[in-house]
Amino acid sequence: MREVGRHLIIELFGCDAKALDDMKTMEENFKKSIEEAGAKIIGEVFHKFNPQGVTGVIIIAESHFSIHTWPEIGYAAIDLFTCGTKVDPMIVLNKLKELLKPSTMSVMELKRGILVRDKI
Amino acid sequence: MREVGRHLIIELFGCDAKALDDMKTMEENFKKSIEEAGAKIIGEVFHKFNPQGVTGVIIIAESHFSIHTWPEIGYAAIDLFTCGTKVDPMIVLNKLKELLKPSTMSVMELKRGILVRDKI
Repeated sequence: MREVGRHLIIELFGCDAKALDDMKTMEENFKKSIEEAGAKIIGEVFHKFNPQGVTGVIIIAESHFSIHTWPEIGYAAIDLFTCGTKVDPMIVLNKLKELLKPSTMSVMELKRGILVRDKI
Repeated sequence: MREVGRHLIIELFGCDAKALDDMKTMEENFKKSIEEAGAKIIGEVFHKFNPQGVTGVIIIAESHFSIHTWPEIGYAAIDLFTCGTKVDPMIVLNKLKELLKPSTMSVMELKRGILVRDKI
């Protein structure tokens, strides 16, 4: 069994509401940590909602990273989808955790594109 | 129990290799179906890899839709993440399925941001 991608599904609850709504700081830290993680950024879209909330998606050569925030309930949905073994998504997760200060979180890892062979 | 988002994790195997590598047609169909599904597009990034493969991410007011393709193995990883009840992601899935012609597929739905109350 072999997969082409690794997808971390992350739920952060009880976050700092101000940090969840601060697009500029989030974007800077997100991008910096992605570079530190060894990924190559090829595009990005960040958007600040009115009255609150931020969406940020960074497209990397190795798939994509995304964050959506709901400051009014202290929640952020994060997806870190990478292919290959070069990029360490935990560096990105740790940076976002440090920034958003969740009181609770869950991380689930999905293997994407599992290639089932006749003989495993 | 109430959630803020609905996230469809879709795996397409045995797809048409040419369709998986045709960024222009994919982008047109993806965007058209997203508009038909009732979502508001606020940004997008499409990228064609060399020698093959496409990444496309469309950021919508209601979260994001993404596709990553591996023509060499006939595989596409699709994520359709929406919040609210206005957008019907199945319209987008059906269009991509029609375009990429998978021989097998799996769809998993995750509820994101489940708000646990003291009394359920």
